[in-house]
Amino acid sequence: MSNPTYEALMAQVRTTRALAQVAGLLSWDQEVMMPANGAAVRAEQAAALEEITHQRNSDPRMEEWLDELDQVELSAEQSANVRLTRRSYERTSKIPATLATELARTTSQAQGIWAKAREANDFEQFSPILQTIIDLKRQEAACLQRDGHTAYDALLNDFEPGMTVVALQPLLEGLRPRLSDLRQRIADSTMDQPQLVGSFSSDSQLALARKLADTVGYEWQSGRLDQSVHPFSSGTAQDTRITTRIDASDPLGCLYSTVHELGHALYEQGITKELGLTPVNNHVSLGVHESQSRLWENQIARSRPFCEWLAPHFIEAFGDCGITNADDLYRTVNKVETGFIRTESDEVHYNLHVLLRFELERELVSGELDISDLEAEWNRRFKRDFGRDVPDAAQGVLQDVHWSVGLFGYFPTYSLGNIYAAQLDGALRDQVSDVDAQLKKGETGEVLSWLRSNVHHHGSLYEPSELMRRASNQSVSSEPLLTYLETKYGELFDL
Amino acid sequence: MSNPTYEALMAQVRTTRALAQVAGLLSWDQEVMMPANGAAVRAEQAAALEEITHQRNSDPRMEEWLDELDQVELSAEQSANVRLTRRSYERTSKIPATLATELARTTSQAQGIWAKAREANDFEQFSPILQTIIDLKRQEAACLQRDGHTAYDALLNDFEPGMTVVALQPLLEGLRPRLSDLRQRIADSTMDQPQLVGSFSSDSQLALARKLADTVGYEWQSGRLDQSVHPFSSGTAQDTRITTRIDASDPLGCLYSTVHELGHALYEQGITKELGLTPVNNHVSLGVHESQSRLWENQIARSRPFCEWLAPHFIEAFGDCGITNADDLYRTVNKVETGFIRTESDEVHYNLHVLLRFELERELVSGELDISDLEAEWNRRFKRDFGRDVPDAAQGVLQDVHWSVGLFGYFPTYSLGNIYAAQLDGALRDQVSDVDAQLKKGETGEVLSWLRSNVHHHGSLYEPSELMRRASNQSVSSEPLLTYLETKYGELFDL
Repeated sequence: MSNPTYEALMAQVRTTRALAQVAGLLSWDQEVMMPANGAAVRAEQAAALEEITHQRNSDPRMEEWLDELDQVELSAEQSANVRLTRRSYERTSKIPATLATELARTTSQAQGIWAKAREANDFEQFSPILQTIIDLKRQEAACLQRDGHTAYDALLNDFEPGMTVVALQPLLEGLRPRLSDLRQRIADSTMDQPQLVGSFSSDSQLALARKLADTVGYEWQSGRLDQSVHPFSSGTAQDTRITTRIDASDPLGCLYSTVHELGHALYEQGITKELGLTPVNNHVSLGVHESQSRLWENQIARSRPFCEWLAPHFIEAFGDCGITNADDLYRTVNKVETGFIRTESDEVHYNLHVLLRFELERELVSGELDISDLEAEWNRRFKRDFGRDVPDAAQGVLQDVHWSVGLFGYFPTYSLGNIYAAQLDGALRDQVSDVDAQLKKGETGEVLSWLRSNVHHHGSLYEPSELMRRASNQSVSSEPLLTYLETKYGELFDL
Repeated sequence: MSNPTYEALMAQVRTTRALAQVAGLLSWDQEVMMPANGAAVRAEQAAALEEITHQRNSDPRMEEWLDELDQVELSAEQSANVRLTRRSYERTSKIPATLATELARTTSQAQGIWAKAREANDFEQFSPILQTIIDLKRQEAACLQRDGHTAYDALLNDFEPGMTVVALQPLLEGLRPRLSDLRQRIADSTMDQPQLVGSFSSDSQLALARKLADTVGYEWQSGRLDQSVHPFSSGTAQDTRITTRIDASDPLGCLYSTVHELGHALYEQGITKELGLTPVNNHVSLGVHESQSRLWENQIARSRPFCEWLAPHFIEAFGDCGITNADDLYRTVNKVETGFIRTESDEVHYNLHVLLRFELERELVSGELDISDLEAEWNRRFKRDFGRDVPDAAQGVLQDVHWSVGLFGYFPTYSLGNIYAAQLDGALRDQVSDVDAQLKKGETGEVLSWLRSNVHHHGSLYEPSELMRRASNQSVSSEPLLTYLETKYGELFDL
């Protein structure tokens, strides 16, 4: 049953969403295809689109339609569309245009300042504008904050709808003791770790990356693979593009970043096949998005059985490089090292990196932590968690771009993704028999089809916690992740 | 001196133009990068942009601003911007939305029908929808037509501002007798024409295409070269992308289509270096655009001196392929053959192909020619002009996509481009000494810099006829083109 007000609202929203997709394509093009001198004109094009999208999102007719629809009986999908549209409308309309403009201008400027400060290894160059960003984000949070919630909750909600610090903090902090213990036991272990040797041609790396994409069921008719400085995925269900990077000394960077982005892309490709540019046909949260990339990257592609399928292809591609069998490969792709950089981290250390940022940014937003203490606190807590002294700001507090672009409340979704991934992996192994036997043959069709029905297909119909409960028959818990890591690395390091 | 009304108008126009550029990028991406399944979503994205652009172009505030500015003293550049904005505003506001929508829908459908009809070699499949398009274009022309002008004038004006049939017809028809005579004398000549032999690798073709781009001064920092089914150029001064096609048996297709698109791109790259998304910083007409592509393709790259530079590179790239020196290459790239397909035509036949279409479409629009007679008339007049019987509709009346997308009044700009090119070439050789000596060394810097100052730089400041008069100190004439062709081919075929 169609309601004319609902149809009017959806017509408005569909056009706006199409424009947002166009903005996504501009970004992809900028990273992957655009010639250097195109940057200034591209900025004007992106600003023009942003201006239009903002006008449409805050169109006063939206509120009339939404209020009218509160009185109307709608289907579950229609209700979800109205709920999601209201959320996005309120986000846009509650933040004054002057604040939005100020934030856009400041963060745009801050990226350049951050990049220079990182190059100069000097946090002092970055801290004044970071303070401005934090002040602006606090103002933004004040506009959005609901009764009984903190400012940080308001920011977090933008990335993980329905999540609060009260629910999230125990979940994430609960990881720390057992991860620290696991980390320490591995550091103390005397187990030798294998080393890749040789030079790895771009063509072979890309060919193997494409083979991985074939194997996990990536639809080439609905996507493409290119190179960029930082790998990413973007696009729509029918046109989901991924990128990878090539390092001649390290083919694993290319291969596992490809699988990671493939996980994101498979999610997007699985959301809907219909031409429904409505809000419900969209990924539900960053945490769930990350769960898909991490599940494919870690629980699948870094598993012992999958390495059995991958090893001969790896050896065929790269010849004599220190890997002679599946066991070598399995141990190589699961090497553990205490490094300083989050993006290069192994599974054991990764969440400790995220926890550090989650803790610091919460305190920055609440005002408990002063920006003048941030670098010292980063270094002190890093030493506490990792047992090593941070050598410089570039490998410490200045390493991530996120804060410079105003992304506060984003980091915890990385760990949520890991938590969700382990929990979904557990559920799928309960429900699909012989997953390992299939992975040994490089067969991932049943895994994908389970994820399609239990996660992808639903789009944004349920909030993330409800989606997880339906898929795994339990509420969100960090236990599956901890068990997975302790079991896997306990065996690998003979702990 | 800045006027607030003028600033408001320009702010509006700049954003609209940025959105139009985004639409251009969507098309480029669709032809060059987009995966197959992306088409349906891309159509929605393009329609969303079109909807917004149309709204902005017909915004009633535009008329208020324009009327107010008629009373204000403005600089030459400002006046040009107001004149160009009024033209585009009137075009949008005079055509009723229903007609615009009907035209968009019909032509979008017609492209598929045309493609199938061409494949089936059956004009009857295409003629009903072509009749509908002609009816709609007549209605469009009626909305735009000025006193004393014909419907065809109104359509032509969209591509060549200021041009009328009264001025154009003698210019183009004046080509026919001498071109027919030249064509016949070459056909009667017993001169052997050289033949390329061998297979030509994609990599070598692309590498030589890139070398050509370097040589003519294409700025790689402001553009890129890719492959597509049909070569084209698109983009802005700071990001002008070109494409080429590769045929393993014919490297000349790749090389000369690249030079052609480079000519278009050099024009765009030369229009302005400032970030001025105002109407005056835009190409002035399709005829002038085509003059730039044809001048580089023919007067430069198919010249004897340039072949002297190109021959060793060609031989180095492709080895033993029937070409051993500059003379072989010169004769090969200037081969003359009476074919049926316009896009594959040589310089001697090309304008005869265009004249045929100009004549027929004028009569279709005026109603002198009935659609039921179109195929027979095409074939009869082709025989008259080329002395050969058209074998089938695919090689005759169905060969071009233009009419199916509603492009009436577009064809003559191809010949205008040739006329302008020869006239500009004459002027530059009058003003720049030793052009040929430079071309022999592959040096084109002075040619480019003459074109930059006399053509590119002006953007849309002058109408095409005024631009040509300023650049060549004479009004537009077909004499330079005829003299150029008769001299060049007279020598080549020893006539």
